[in-house]
Amino acid sequence: MKRFVPSLALVERVQNGEAAAVARLISRAETGTDEARTALARIYKLAGRAHVIGITGVPGSGKSTLVGKLAQKMRARAHKIGIVAIDPSSPYSGGAILGDRIRMTELAMDPGIYIRSMATRGAIGGMARAALDAVDILDVAGFDTIIIETVGVGQDEVEIARASHTTVVVSAPGLGDEIQAIKAGILEIADVHVVSKCDRSDANRTLTDLKQMLMIGMMNAPNPDWTVPVIGTSAVNDQGLDDLIEAIAKHRQVAFETETGRARRLSVAQFRLRKTAENLLLERFDRAVAKHGAPLATKLQNRAADPYSAAAELLEASFETEDCHEQNARSKIAR
Amino acid sequence: MKRFVPSLALVERVQNGEAAAVARLISRAETGTDEARTALARIYKLAGRAHVIGITGVPGSGKSTLVGKLAQKMRARAHKIGIVAIDPSSPYSGGAILGDRIRMTELAMDPGIYIRSMATRGAIGGMARAALDAVDILDVAGFDTIIIETVGVGQDEVEIARASHTTVVVSAPGLGDEIQAIKAGILEIADVHVVSKCDRSDANRTLTDLKQMLMIGMMNAPNPDWTVPVIGTSAVNDQGLDDLIEAIAKHRQVAFETETGRARRLSVAQFRLRKTAENLLLERFDRAVAKHGAPLATKLQNRAADPYSAAAELLEASFETEDCHEQNARSKIAR
Repeated sequence: MKRFVPSLALVERVQNGEAAAVARLISRAETGTDEARTALARIYKLAGRAHVIGITGVPGSGKSTLVGKLAQKMRARAHKIGIVAIDPSSPYSGGAILGDRIRMTELAMDPGIYIRSMATRGAIGGMARAALDAVDILDVAGFDTIIIETVGVGQDEVEIARASHTTVVVSAPGLGDEIQAIKAGILEIADVHVVSKCDRSDANRTLTDLKQMLMIGMMNAPNPDWTVPVIGTSAVNDQGLDDLIEAIAKHRQVAFETETGRARRLSVAQFRLRKTAENLLLERFDRAVAKHGAPLATKLQNRAADPYSAAAELLEASFETEDCHEQNARSKIAR
Repeated sequence: MKRFVPSLALVERVQNGEAAAVARLISRAETGTDEARTALARIYKLAGRAHVIGITGVPGSGKSTLVGKLAQKMRARAHKIGIVAIDPSSPYSGGAILGDRIRMTELAMDPGIYIRSMATRGAIGGMARAALDAVDILDVAGFDTIIIETVGVGQDEVEIARASHTTVVVSAPGLGDEIQAIKAGILEIADVHVVSKCDRSDANRTLTDLKQMLMIGMMNAPNPDWTVPVIGTSAVNDQGLDDLIEAIAKHRQVAFETETGRARRLSVAQFRLRKTAENLLLERFDRAVAKHGAPLATKLQNRAADPYSAAAELLEASFETEDCHEQNARSKIAR
């Protein structure tokens, strides 16, 4: 039987690089228990050394394959690599899809690679909060390169990929119209562009399109410290992987040693503060909905109330919205 | 020059079915001004007659084409049809993609069809709130059938499609693995399944798969009032469209006249209450972040603070979290 180990006690084991402690603390970050928060707060203060790489792309772009290949190649250069993969999941069943995990079993045999699949469950902001906690846990456990892989649909998923030092956006040739439309929203966050499946004949078109869009400044704000490269890769013959690893290494310097990098780290901190606060706020709100929501919803269903006044009533019941100063002022007058 | 018309004055014009008033009030619902809320509250109480149909499907499923064809066919049966299309949009530029709008120009020539493309912008919950306000506006303007079209990725998008009387989920043959994985999360919300592109030879496989999954009860909770049909369609020869229209009409009765339908309407009301309240709450939170966020983010960036304590501090500054009773009790003791 497993004995419960306090989260704070796990921190030291994480510092010693114990894989089991890493796994347990990430699980607690996912669940988001109060008990774990003190430990995660300590982890945060200990972290900050690893190079964090966000990799994102639309469904079908082949980013999972790329992440696998990339991790293998980097390992050959003696990096210790952590991978945090955010799975799409049913909003109803809450279950994660095992696809990525299965695909990565080969990698999982290597003790220098740690892979964690995370479900996108729970309250808004919860996924981002937990994923970034997981990155810190791996950081403290001694992983010097950490990849966050997310599917490039959904605002949170995209922003998580950007909450890194270096963001890689993966495109692929020959995707349909609707996919391309979604893609438009993620191109602009790239520090490095990858066009996968370059063994295909239509890949050249995708490469050229991206380069032209970059040249006319359609996608990125001008950056004095960095010119965004476009790299063609292919999983068939490992084409382009070395170029990609080199581009990532070069961008690491920009991330850690320039003013642009500092500004980026500040915006990541803003994002993280926001998501953590949103998550705490909405947890509190959830409890209030469970307590006060039912009668208000019934009134709404019968159109005896409108959504705005019902929502205001719910918030009033949820939070101490009345200003204490006002209330005290009134009680002073009454005295 | 356009004179500002108070939102409340627009309500009467909407009731008269004036397209310009409909457009303006939907825009104000999108912006989410305080001024518009009184009007939208009134609209809500006037609405409730239209049959609301949610149509969703993964990127590439051909749902936009289907919605266009469906609206045309229904118009031949003299329905007045409103379409609210939720566009994917860049989380950074906030711009909507014009694809759907262009595709639908043909329809837009018909005065009995009103099409509105909405961007997914602003605070969390804002899109759902605005989209459902738009449905009510069209309802009050006399549209008897209203289609909400959303892409089936992202929890909010999926739930908006479910915030209807009848939900149609569109699948297509021959999509890649990653797309199929996302699809898994939306199959279970279907009242009617459509398999599009049935002119393709691999469509039979998709039809059979869906029917089998339904038969073994993998996807839906048992429903005494409704058996979920699977309908094959093709835009090439309008195959299956009449069957789909009939299935939707039959489900309308379930939605309006059975206990199952009543329970569903209650869960839609709960969703709406929740999203409206979330939106109001996060607007308030946004203002607090703008006011108090910067110094906390800097402390976080320097790892001088951890995300949890910084978030708690931010929430404290944002809301009157201190319980007034406690505060008053203390001041009584002091007296």
